[in-house]
Amino acid sequence: KIGEVSVQVLGILSLLLVIVWSVHFRGGLAWSIENKGLIFNWHPILMVTAFVFLASEGVLAYRLFPGTHQLKKAIHLTVQLVALIIAAVGITAAFRFHNESKPPIDNLYSLHSWFGVTTYSLFALQWLGGCYTFWYPGAAPPTRSWFLPYHASLGIFIYILALTTASQGILEKLTFLQSGGAIGRRSTETILANCLGLVIFALGGVVLALAPR
Amino acid sequence: KIGEVSVQVLGILSLLLVIVWSVHFRGGLAWSIENKGLIFNWHPILMVTAFVFLASEGVLAYRLFPGTHQLKKAIHLTVQLVALIIAAVGITAAFRFHNESKPPIDNLYSLHSWFGVTTYSLFALQWLGGCYTFWYPGAAPPTRSWFLPYHASLGIFIYILALTTASQGILEKLTFLQSGGAIGRRSTETILANCLGLVIFALGGVVLALAPR
Ligand code: HEM
Ligand code: HEM
Ligand code: HEM
Ligand code: HEM
Ligand SMILES: O=C1O[C@H]([C@@H](O)CO)C(O)=C1O
Repeated sequence: KIGEVSVQVLGILSLLLVIVWSVHFRGGLAWSIENKGLIFNWHPILMVTAFVFLASEGVLAYRLFPGTHQLKKAIHLTVQLVALIIAAVGITAAFRFHNESKPPIDNLYSLHSWFGVTTYSLFALQWLGGCYTFWYPGAAPPTRSWFLPYHASLGIFIYILALTTASQGILEKLTFLQSGGAIGRRSTETILANCLGLVIFALGGVVLALAPR
Repeated sequence: KIGEVSVQVLGILSLLLVIVWSVHFRGGLAWSIENKGLIFNWHPILMVTAFVFLASEGVLAYRLFPGTHQLKKAIHLTVQLVALIIAAVGITAAFRFHNESKPPIDNLYSLHSWFGVTTYSLFALQWLGGCYTFWYPGAAPPTRSWFLPYHASLGIFIYILALTTASQGILEKLTFLQSGGAIGRRSTETILANCLGLVIFALGGVVLALAPR
């Protein structure tokens, strides 16, 4: 019980922290405006929603939600699909920020962006492989039980990559802001965003402890 | 077999990449000199040696090394102790770089440093707990078998934290160099260090797949 409650508390806390950071400290959100920084601000919010909050719920769906096995499977599949869609919008926000800045900023140069593309690609492949094997058209029962341990272990590995990528993004954004002198190295904003990074891995620790492996 | 070989290949590749980066691209190593950057250069090398290469060997010691259970246990314990000692020197190098720079640089402001201190502390506690329970003075057999699953799961979680922290360090160093204009965002050095980050997580993936959980 305490594990399940912690997942929800830490998940909601990550959402709150990333929203306070982007909206209160970074100046808010916009999708079409001259201030490209406000378009970027969607990126942290959407990525934490998709690949931290929803991915955690999705990985633990069989454990967290009541109902038949078939219902849990539908929730597991749907939550991860929603995560993939929200993450696609979130990554678009980062690319738009780069491409529409004057002068434009290079794409895909950072370790964070390399991890980001790797995570997104593996997450999408994992979803397709899971859907094909366990839902539609669905494989024969022996193939399903042969594939399940790989699906579960790969799923956990991709989930870890997602948390790592999110923590890198937080670090990179703070480093830009601090190096440019926009915020202090001991500012409230720095401390809040560092706490977001720690909360994400506290959540990850609980999810790993609860996930059947 | 292919798993065990991959661990060694990827582990040695991480060591080679971090050495080429620090020695060839970053100007080499020193412990007492005016150029504090050369003291810092020990930090990546020692941290990758300790918390990537040795930690991987240590986690898999029961699987990688031949001999009696008692011998494997001694190897497991010793490798992780050596990792702790080397990591202590590596963290000292980062602090000396900060404290002896003119003007001095703040300590412990970054998310990387917060993850670093958390990882080091948990690694040290894990070592003490493991040693106390399974080696000296050693707990009663029922306590040992009760504690073992916690020891194994916590050990894996701390290992994941170590890899995450290393990847953050690489990203942070590159961001400093790129923002200051010292290296290009598409330079050979950037690509080499990004590859180091990916290799570290490829190694992590294989270790997680091989570790009995
Ligand atoms: C798992 C979650 C995340 C993924 C998959 C991800 C992915 C990406 C990708 C692919 C880019 C490259 C965009 C381009 O090259 O045009 C990017 C850029 C960026 N992201 Fe994220 N991101 C994630 C979370 C975050 C978070 C939580 C932050 C926090 C602020 C963040 C901050 C940044 C920044 C500052 C950039 C621009 C600099 C760069 O290209 O590295 N990211 N992200
Ligand atoms: C990228 C998205 C996905 C991730 C990260 C993921 C991850 C996981 C993980 C970690 C497990 C093991 C945890 C557990 O058993 O409770 C699991 C189990 C499972 N997943 Fe997925 N999965 C994804 C997509 C899918 C899809 C699209 C399907 C299609 C139906 C699917 C079907 C299953 C099934 C049937 C199980 C076994 C549940 C059981 O009987 O215990 N997964 N998944
Ligand atoms: C798991 C391995 C690692 C741990 C535990 C770790 C730990 C730390 C700690 C505790 C500090 C703070 C020093 C201070 O505040 O004076 C630090 C600083 C630093 N580390 Fe690491 N580190 C690791 C790996 C790396 C790697 C591989 C790099 C790659 C270059 C790196 C780059 C840096 C940089 C640039 C700093 C100075 C800026 C800052 O304080 O964040 N670290 N590290
Ligand atoms: C920070 C250092 C340590 C880490 C990260 C760590 C991690 C792990 C992991 C992941 C496992 C499960 C993998 C496996 O069973 O092969 C394990 C098993 C074990 N560890 Fe540790 N450990 C550490 C320190 C120690 C110490 C100091 C001892 C003292 C002897 C110890 C004793 C054991 C024993 C007895 C097992 C069970 C092996 C078996 O029978 O399968 N560990 N450790
Ligand atoms: O000391 C030990 O404890 C575990 C196991 O006996 C616990 O049940 C193990 O493998 C040891 O070497």
